[in-house]
Amino acid sequence: MTDAAVDPALAARLPKLRELYSALQDRGLSLDLTRGKPSAEQLDLSESLLALPGEGVHTAGGTDVRNYGGLDGLPQLREIFAELLGVPTAQLLAQDNASLRLMWDTLVQALLFGVPGGEGPWSQQGPITFVCPVPGYDRHFAICEELGIRMVTVPMTPDGPDVEAVAALVADDPSVKGLWVVPTYANPDGSVVSEDVARRLVSMPTAAPDFRIFWDNAYAVHHLTQHETTSANAIELAAEAGNPDRVVMFASTSKITFAGAGVSFLASSPGNIAWFKQHLSFRSIGPDKVNQLRHALFFGDAAGVRAHMAKHREILAPKFAAVTRILGERLGDAGVATWTDPQGGYFVSVDVVPGTAARVVELAKAAGIALTPAGATFPYGQDPADRNIRLAPSMPPLAEVETAMDGVATCILLAAAEVAAAA
Amino acid sequence: MTDAAVDPALAARLPKLRELYSALQDRGLSLDLTRGKPSAEQLDLSESLLALPGEGVHTAGGTDVRNYGGLDGLPQLREIFAELLGVPTAQLLAQDNASLRLMWDTLVQALLFGVPGGEGPWSQQGPITFVCPVPGYDRHFAICEELGIRMVTVPMTPDGPDVEAVAALVADDPSVKGLWVVPTYANPDGSVVSEDVARRLVSMPTAAPDFRIFWDNAYAVHHLTQHETTSANAIELAAEAGNPDRVVMFASTSKITFAGAGVSFLASSPGNIAWFKQHLSFRSIGPDKVNQLRHALFFGDAAGVRAHMAKHREILAPKFAAVTRILGERLGDAGVATWTDPQGGYFVSVDVVPGTAARVVELAKAAGIALTPAGATFPYGQDPADRNIRLAPSMPPLAEVETAMDGVATCILLAAAEVAAAA
Repeated sequence: MTDAAVDPALAARLPKLRELYSALQDRGLSLDLTRGKPSAEQLDLSESLLALPGEGVHTAGGTDVRNYGGLDGLPQLREIFAELLGVPTAQLLAQDNASLRLMWDTLVQALLFGVPGGEGPWSQQGPITFVCPVPGYDRHFAICEELGIRMVTVPMTPDGPDVEAVAALVADDPSVKGLWVVPTYANPDGSVVSEDVARRLVSMPTAAPDFRIFWDNAYAVHHLTQHETTSANAIELAAEAGNPDRVVMFASTSKITFAGAGVSFLASSPGNIAWFKQHLSFRSIGPDKVNQLRHALFFGDAAGVRAHMAKHREILAPKFAAVTRILGERLGDAGVATWTDPQGGYFVSVDVVPGTAARVVELAKAAGIALTPAGATFPYGQDPADRNIRLAPSMPPLAEVETAMDGVATCILLAAAEVAAAA
Repeated sequence: MTDAAVDPALAARLPKLRELYSALQDRGLSLDLTRGKPSAEQLDLSESLLALPGEGVHTAGGTDVRNYGGLDGLPQLREIFAELLGVPTAQLLAQDNASLRLMWDTLVQALLFGVPGGEGPWSQQGPITFVCPVPGYDRHFAICEELGIRMVTVPMTPDGPDVEAVAALVADDPSVKGLWVVPTYANPDGSVVSEDVARRLVSMPTAAPDFRIFWDNAYAVHHLTQHETTSANAIELAAEAGNPDRVVMFASTSKITFAGAGVSFLASSPGNIAWFKQHLSFRSIGPDKVNQLRHALFFGDAAGVRAHMAKHREILAPKFAAVTRILGERLGDAGVATWTDPQGGYFVSVDVVPGTAARVVELAKAAGIALTPAGATFPYGQDPADRNIRLAPSMPPLAEVETAMDGVATCILLAAAEVAAAA
């Protein structure tokens, strides 16, 4: 589908689609595809964490994990994730339960104190701008809005952010201080940053001497196929390009073990790590090392994490297959939508007839199917084409995903037919 | 002891004290009284936490604690600590592993966004000042220094901060935005804020309309005697005084269960709680609810916390008794020091001969006894009289506390004798 007008022939289907929708409403559904939350079945995979580390087990490498200290996090766990994320252990911090918090902290530190290579606190340099690939992650945009950081958008491509568009924005304007990237199985479109794109992002000239890429590797090991795609190693490439401090990577076990009770990670250059820790030391005496030991014992090693993720895949892959299968069956030849076929991560991105995304979400809601609000994948919640919808099929059981997606397809068709009839 | 000159007769004891100190050095000690860390024996009291909540136990009040959400924290745990802290559960948030973090967040929110009843972000109102009772807690002072907040000092009294001095500082200067208070068994002097002092602090006129008292109730239930002293209920008194938003209370289980792997709490007025949560929602999807359930199951109820604290007391009280006993035996009639006799908390505060605190710490270090740096209990690390030393006897075994304190007494005497000899 392009942005071209919807097929006028759809108007003829309007009465039939209204009947279908009415029948959908009559089912009295209560289904939810809004957030990328793991299902209870997935959480059960980590059930043994609930009894770990076990009584009498409270030391790791000579450290009593029950006491204060250890700002970097537990070496045993950092080693495991350093291997998975492709960074030296010394450049990886393990912290508490949310990488969102680490992104927030990094931005607040930049605003209040400035960053290495910069010219003082960002908050004293007039308005700051971040480049936001769209569609993207609503919580990234919300943090920027909360902190008064302006956002400009660039399109996503299957290989990551549109590099030409990014390079043009950062080349001359020193107020452009940052770029959000979800490099592996991006939220919501599933794209994976290629080595070529990464190389250009870390080497492009930037007017700001302290430009930072917030590399939110939330789905680094969250494969939906046996082909375990890896995004480019941006930290290594940045060092090679002579811009070692440009990339700050974030990750967590939120969708590996327990969402909200996992461990978060921050990786970057030695300079950025020292900078982060220096300010961290004022607000923390150390992360929850007991939880880190719990995770280290649970995984054993990096292979243990990979084996664990294969179990997630067995649960998730059928749900994602159902989403794309039903969209294909119901909308395949109607010319009313395109959608992604992600090879990992937590989302399917659907582009419907321009001007109908909000209507589709409204119709779905009235039929008992909760979708992420239209516009959520754009800064300020405003999708200029009113076209993109993010689907999150992880949480409901497979049968509910199927029921919900059949309903969503009906809503997409009905909204398109309404437009065709009004044309 | 007053600030008056040291007894000249001490000079005669100098040779003997030098011999004693030389013998102390010859023992090759390696002892540490620097930080208020719980001992391994105390951490063992919570050992069963390491296997909680246990496999199959992951719901609380219908909530799956393994998944995202629940910004306020788990109601089951909040109810227990609401009773202990004397606040309504609705006005108490349970968060992650460090109350230090909550203090930091509260200050950062005030700087970036302003607080209820204020006139915008504190960072846009010129220099901000906090009143710091001294001696006080070095991490409070460090946060202020890191955030560029000026500090002015007032003396501590056995009933809390010197209210007259505080009232005079806040009355006319709108840049004075806050006051640090450790209300129960203060760090380091063990004082407990009386109801009269609290009532005056919450009702005194302040030039700043958005003045805040950071009420760090870190030792609320940390009694060293069977008389379980309670500091004044400042949140309730502030509401009665018509200044409901003035007090923000912080607490944690760091010295109840595991230091660094516990749960932190923030309590305040409904308005402040709403304000804190509104901004919190941008940086967190919720705290670690598994750890909160773990703690709720471990304690059972408020009585469970009290019973648990009695076990800490059995371990700690003999150590504190040793400190005051040895100081009394060695220094009782020498006129070279005064010290507190705390009824709870983690510290003994010693005032030595003015001008000798740094020398005492230096002498102790050279004899293998690590003490908190002189000046640490004052803003910017500067004790104008070079007099105060904070002792933290919780961590070493009793025998080591005794050995260390005997050595510290020798150092205090030697430093005083050096002054007397030089006079």
